[in-house]
Amino acid sequence: MKTKAYANHAPNQPLSLFHFDRRELRDDDIEFDVLFCGVCHSDLHHVAGDWKTNYPCVPGHEIVGRVSKIGKNVTQFKIGDAVAVGCMVDSCQHCRPCLNQLEQYCEEGATFTYNDTDRQDKQATFGGYSERMVVREKFALHVPEHLDLAAAAPLLCAGITVYSPLKHWKVQAGSKVGIIGLGGLGHMAIKLARAMGAEVTLFSRSPDKAEDAQRLGAHHIVLSSDKTQMKAVANTLDVIIDTVPYAHDLQPYLQTLTLDGTLVLVGLIDKIEPSFNSAPLVLGRRSVAGSLIGGIAETQEMLNFCGQHNIVSDIELIPIQEINHAYERMLKSDVKYRFVIDMSSLKQESL
Amino acid sequence: MKTKAYANHAPNQPLSLFHFDRRELRDDDIEFDVLFCGVCHSDLHHVAGDWKTNYPCVPGHEIVGRVSKIGKNVTQFKIGDAVAVGCMVDSCQHCRPCLNQLEQYCEEGATFTYNDTDRQDKQATFGGYSERMVVREKFALHVPEHLDLAAAAPLLCAGITVYSPLKHWKVQAGSKVGIIGLGGLGHMAIKLARAMGAEVTLFSRSPDKAEDAQRLGAHHIVLSSDKTQMKAVANTLDVIIDTVPYAHDLQPYLQTLTLDGTLVLVGLIDKIEPSFNSAPLVLGRRSVAGSLIGGIAETQEMLNFCGQHNIVSDIELIPIQEINHAYERMLKSDVKYRFVIDMSSLKQESL
Repeated sequence: MKTKAYANHAPNQPLSLFHFDRRELRDDDIEFDVLFCGVCHSDLHHVAGDWKTNYPCVPGHEIVGRVSKIGKNVTQFKIGDAVAVGCMVDSCQHCRPCLNQLEQYCEEGATFTYNDTDRQDKQATFGGYSERMVVREKFALHVPEHLDLAAAAPLLCAGITVYSPLKHWKVQAGSKVGIIGLGGLGHMAIKLARAMGAEVTLFSRSPDKAEDAQRLGAHHIVLSSDKTQMKAVANTLDVIIDTVPYAHDLQPYLQTLTLDGTLVLVGLIDKIEPSFNSAPLVLGRRSVAGSLIGGIAETQEMLNFCGQHNIVSDIELIPIQEINHAYERMLKSDVKYRFVIDMSSLKQESL
Repeated sequence: MKTKAYANHAPNQPLSLFHFDRRELRDDDIEFDVLFCGVCHSDLHHVAGDWKTNYPCVPGHEIVGRVSKIGKNVTQFKIGDAVAVGCMVDSCQHCRPCLNQLEQYCEEGATFTYNDTDRQDKQATFGGYSERMVVREKFALHVPEHLDLAAAAPLLCAGITVYSPLKHWKVQAGSKVGIIGLGGLGHMAIKLARAMGAEVTLFSRSPDKAEDAQRLGAHHIVLSSDKTQMKAVANTLDVIIDTVPYAHDLQPYLQTLTLDGTLVLVGLIDKIEPSFNSAPLVLGRRSVAGSLIGGIAETQEMLNFCGQHNIVSDIELIPIQEINHAYERMLKSDVKYRFVIDMSSLKQESL
């Protein structure tokens, strides 16, 4: 099926109108019209060519739409349903992680929603900056209908990326949770940890974020550059979700963890620089860990949780024609807190 | 009570004969004659003045002896019992870690066996390189009588330091455990992990350690400098106990952890240099953690486990007069695998 999209064709080039053939429906596939697609920082990395991009690249893995067709073996979706797709569209389904519903850690490598290769026809995968998606039913999610579908789109990556470690490290009522960084991931982490009943502390370098952090649900704001404030929270936090996507010093945060506390990196896939001293780990049995998105079942659990608690992302809705400008603003952290593309804007474009 | 000992009086000076007054028995104290005392690497650090040493310093925290007196409220020991003391002789007993039997993480700071200050009389604590100890009953351990008491002494620090993380990270039959470094801690880690039913892999830089590692119980030896061997064990280990006491590159080992695997630092209290890349953490939900000795109840559990499995340390027994030479050999890693002082050698010395 000929499908309109926005793509880029070489490193750091602007995205522009493009078309490609979406595969025909397989028996276990659903097809849907894309209504909204969130804009993730990893889209910028792919477009920039930082992560071995195959061009043309159609980004987008925070996708919400409505089912338009179903394959003959599809049982969980019907035409007209609200549907979502996140970062993965397939996995091997037989390795230990897959059998444990942790498809994101598939030993053969999950199939990512874009810039990857379909496991069956070996064709490139193209993401949600497009008018329609075709996806294996097992990797499609149900979106609670009462949520704002545009604002729900970022749940599919930003949301699950922080929900999964909060659950894995057993955050519950009474837990003390720290969040480092107030961006797309950080603002979702505040909302989700708060809804789980945690006492939430935001670490920030900017005092001007305090008001917004409180509105989002943070109980405390700690200026990470202020040694007195940092010392006041020493040994208090059970879990820290570190959303910062560039190298930064972990040392000041390790002291704020309690005995057996864990700092979880979800934004940084790079050298941990400067290096840190192991003393807080050894002397308090603390851990530094990492976490990657979440499995499909857990992503559905997260969407249901957001439905129950009426949680969505704070977004700026843009037409696809503004995507290149949005990227420029994201490089300056100038967005509160996630751009979402209104994909109806693609209708006006003709090839 | 006037007590003979070996002490050093200034940084990097040799140890020599010394005497001091041990406190009189309190109602909840036991007194015992020191039979054997293991020589731990941390003794070298204290003697060298690396860790804020108060001189004179009488080292020794791997102590085995026989009870000679008991205070009137003592109920768990009688005169003649085999008894042991490890790294701690007291703690606050009311903080959360203490209430959870994790006295080593006492929020007010545990009282260490030497180079510390008694909580009641504020006098310096002196360790096991001495003819007798006086210790609060709660911090005294029972040693299974059928064990070789000299070879049991290193269990009190080297043994518990590796036993505690093996238990905390749930090593059991079928677990795959890696050990980095074959010294006092490493050789105990092999024995204990093997006895827990784990499949044990020793990482070493020296191919000539293979035979000894197998004798100690390792199933596999991997040369950490050999990329092919390291690749062959990628994604296989549930837990790695890293016993190396100096800065070293963690990166090659992180890849050998399986999903949710943990590398536990027990030897390094210093900068982690070179810095490592977080990708193996994020992409496999792996952790880098630390662990410090063990609580008193867990130390007793470890001694009982060693009794059941007939596990002791491989030792070289020396008279106290050879202690300075032993330190020189330890600096060259020339010991298999722990020096233990036969404290009867102190009897021949007169002040």
